[in-house]
Amino acid sequence: MRRASGVVRSPFVASFDSLSFITDYGLEDGFVAACHGVAARIAPAARVIDITHLVQPGDVRRGAAVLAQTIPYLPPAVHVAVVDPGVGTARRGVAVKAGDSILVGPDNGLLSWAIDAKGGADQAFQLTNGDLWLHPVSPTFHGRDIFMPVAAHLAAGTDLSLAGDEIDLADLVTLPAPTSRVRDGEAEGEVMSVDRFGNVQLSIVAADVGRLGVGFGSPLVVRTGRRQLTVPFVETFAAAAPGEIVAFTDSAGLISLAVNAGDAAQQLGLPPGAHVRLSAAHPS
Amino acid sequence: MRRASGVVRSPFVASFDSLSFITDYGLEDGFVAACHGVAARIAPAARVIDITHLVQPGDVRRGAAVLAQTIPYLPPAVHVAVVDPGVGTARRGVAVKAGDSILVGPDNGLLSWAIDAKGGADQAFQLTNGDLWLHPVSPTFHGRDIFMPVAAHLAAGTDLSLAGDEIDLADLVTLPAPTSRVRDGEAEGEVMSVDRFGNVQLSIVAADVGRLGVGFGSPLVVRTGRRQLTVPFVETFAAAAPGEIVAFTDSAGLISLAVNAGDAAQQLGLPPGAHVRLSAAHPS
Amino acid sequence: MRRASGVVRSPFVASFDSLSFITDYGLEDGFVAACHGVAARIAPAARVIDITHLVQPGDVRRGAAVLAQTIPYLPPAVHVAVVDPGVGTARRGVAVKAGDSILVGPDNGLLSWAIDAKGGADQAFQLTNGDLWLHPVSPTFHGRDIFMPVAAHLAAGTDLSLAGDEIDLADLVTLPAPTSRVRDGEAEGEVMSVDRFGNVQLSIVAADVGRLGVGFGSPLVVRTGRRQLTVPFVETFAAAAPGEIVAFTDSAGLISLAVNAGDAAQQLGLPPGAHVRLSAAHPS
Repeated sequence: MRRASGVVRSPFVASFDSLSFITDYGLEDGFVAACHGVAARIAPAARVIDITHLVQPGDVRRGAAVLAQTIPYLPPAVHVAVVDPGVGTARRGVAVKAGDSILVGPDNGLLSWAIDAKGGADQAFQLTNGDLWLHPVSPTFHGRDIFMPVAAHLAAGTDLSLAGDEIDLADLVTLPAPTSRVRDGEAEGEVMSVDRFGNVQLSIVAADVGRLGVGFGSPLVVRTGRRQLTVPFVETFAAAAPGEIVAFTDSAGLISLAVNAGDAAQQLGLPPGAHVRLSAAHPS
Repeated sequence: MRRASGVVRSPFVASFDSLSFITDYGLEDGFVAACHGVAARIAPAARVIDITHLVQPGDVRRGAAVLAQTIPYLPPAVHVAVVDPGVGTARRGVAVKAGDSILVGPDNGLLSWAIDAKGGADQAFQLTNGDLWLHPVSPTFHGRDIFMPVAAHLAAGTDLSLAGDEIDLADLVTLPAPTSRVRDGEAEGEVMSVDRFGNVQLSIVAADVGRLGVGFGSPLVVRTGRRQLTVPFVETFAAAAPGEIVAFTDSAGLISLAVNAGDAAQQLGLPPGAHVRLSAAHPS
Repeated sequence: MRRASGVVRSPFVASFDSLSFITDYGLEDGFVAACHGVAARIAPAARVIDITHLVQPGDVRRGAAVLAQTIPYLPPAVHVAVVDPGVGTARRGVAVKAGDSILVGPDNGLLSWAIDAKGGADQAFQLTNGDLWLHPVSPTFHGRDIFMPVAAHLAAGTDLSLAGDEIDLADLVTLPAPTSRVRDGEAEGEVMSVDRFGNVQLSIVAADVGRLGVGFGSPLVVRTGRRQLTVPFVETFAAAAPGEIVAFTDSAGLISLAVNAGDAAQQLGLPPGAHVRLSAAHPS
């Protein structure tokens, strides 16, 4: 897709004020800072918003969820995501235009939920243009040597089509969407994640609990494995008595289980991925 | 307090280059980044200085102490603080002008020591103007949907009086000031906090130890519960022998107990809140 | 070295867009933010890139290694490093010009490997000019009151020679360089550090393994204490089978041991400082 001439016709030439950055690099080493430095050298005017760097090492699904839930609140940006257990292998690097933003990272599904949150992919390029990379490229640190340099060049105004070869949108790797469905009077889903407060986020969207006919103050039956408990569905966990388990709609629009002033994940023993079903205590 | 017309007369119209931000949100999720994104959209020119996001969940007192001890070193700013176990309940959100700054957060005492550090509140407004918020407002994430958007609008030049209804300064919730008093030749206080180095910060101000007649190099008797130990009062813990317990004036002007190259909190078993009394080894 | 007149002739008058910052202050307190605030007041136009603040308390060697491995990717900057177990004692504070940057911190060896990475020191000054400090100076927080204020003044254009008295480059404290040598067909070194992924970074440079005649795919014998194991030398750990121990050249150009999707440090029980020897499985 690169043109022999310097003239590029593009439907999407723009520069960005912002980069966002999410990885599993941790905060104890200089990995994140090296990428910040690379961004500052190439796109000195761009601000970098760090989403988190504490995704569990290699947990692509968790990275995808945090990115997708955060991206609606970020400014238009080049979003760089690196949770990349396959770094240095055949998996592709990609830059994907979606809505007002560009997403850059490994093509392993990490970007897919965020692309959905932006209304779907408009255009995608495999990162094959080494002119935008830092050389020599370390086989184990593409965040520093490929993803961030490419993203910073794009933020600074380099045309997206110069990132590499255009690829078919249907070929982008996607993660299976988290389950949220209503069947036989039950909303089914799984544990998406556990936050710092021990709140257990389910993949079940608030609308599905609405379809069960459960309103604020109503009891909700939670089934998981062989266990079953009935908890109030409340507007906010702070309304609950200390120690009480409640269900509420969290800030991402998903049903979460919480213990006011306590740790629901610990108390319920619900790890990410666990299957959960919700129903009205008295089916309406 | 909102005017029907667009014309606002105010004693304090200003924009700010900086926001500061302290929460108990942790660094593993996208919560902090969502707030940064909101700030970048509303006040793109403002820098955000993160104070810490590792306040223990719901520990209002700890958040208040860190904010108050840090704010003297920050530039004039809109300071956003969210340690908010009552989020979504009746507790008010407020914006308070104090000295060269504005503080925004829940009215639960979190802001009170920082307001004192800024010389006291000049004007306070309850956050009732929904025009400045992000909608829909999540009942559990006012940091993203109320506090940060309001703060960013204020940083960008929106008049403080537009934040909502002016309230009586006497109605602001305040935390009881940490104890520091001298009585019967003893300085009394409590453990304020324990830092990363295991240094135990007391609420006792350096001047009170001065009033006991204890100078550098003199022995200081530390009483806590039934225990009593005598430690040297030194200028800096680095001057002590490795493993030696010492007392010194810390960087916030408070008496702290430290073990050079060790962890005083662990060694002394002193948790936050523990009552402590100090006296001269030989009363002068 | 300070001039009585206001006229200063200097070989290196410049201002910097960037500061970088590495400490052992941790992220739970307001220490880092106080320094950011000081920088923002003195050099409002400078961006601060945080390298890490999670160096283990007092671990000068670890701080030196992270700084030296990160600095090549940072823009020209005033780099502030504070891992300073001797704070408040006789150890000097210094500002050192090296290549396109200035390094500021305690003269305890912390800066030395980064100075080497920048091609060596050109000029060094002891921080004796209190006009650039924040007063009163806390004896335990020179990061806030001396190092960062001096660095911010230098970033804002203050001439380096105004930092204090020029000192002899030979008097700068240096850490012994990490061992990497080839002897009797073995590359010798030690464990430099362990990263978040459990990868064990050795002090042995990739070129030394090349000198052993070991190429990608060849087996490498790893000897440490009484243990010996043979692992493949690969281009990237992601190429290995899950659970397999491999050796590879890491992103800093050093030999590292890794377990794909596992924790090599834990599995091998290799702490920083442990002596390690590498050799070809069949000497070539």
